[in-house]
Amino acid sequence: MRARVFVTLKPSVFDPQGTTVAEALHTLGYSSVADVRQGKYFELTLDANTPEEARRIATEAADKLLANPVIESYRIEIDAAGAPAAGAGR
Amino acid sequence: MRARVFVTLKPSVFDPQGTTVAEALHTLGYSSVADVRQGKYFELTLDANTPEEARRIATEAADKLLANPVIESYRIEIDAAGAPAAGAGR
Repeated sequence: MRARVFVTLKPSVFDPQGTTVAEALHTLGYSSVADVRQGKYFELTLDANTPEEARRIATEAADKLLANPVIESYRIEIDAAGAPAAGAGR
Repeated sequence: MRARVFVTLKPSVFDPQGTTVAEALHTLGYSSVADVRQGKYFELTLDANTPEEARRIATEAADKLLANPVIESYRIEIDAAGAPAAGAGR
């Protein structure tokens, strides 16, 4: 089973990487890009029997290791290969 | 409109960051994590009139700036509603 964890800086935290990317896109002529936020993306392959178990493990991993809860927030998606992905939200 | 760009190393490219995260998770007791791949995540806020236009801009941005097509692949999601993507953790 696959879990995707998206970690982004909280909206109130300044994101210099994203600002730099936005400025580079403006320089390339993409003036329609109003804002860019950059984050991290983790794809976890898990030995879990249920989407609920996969979500629990991914949530603990994000809390303990993948995200810094002081400045970052995260979002988790479970992809139970074969089963509908959005099925098992907690 | 919001476009999300996920950039990951191609499967054939060694991912030392992901391997380190997987080893750290094993050390923390999460032996059910078989593999981790780490990537980048960009959230673009765009002035686009249609999802198709947003996708075109995001694709060009990914090709030219966000991803290195030699070793990385990317995936794009368009969120026409523009709702904030990263929820409040947990």
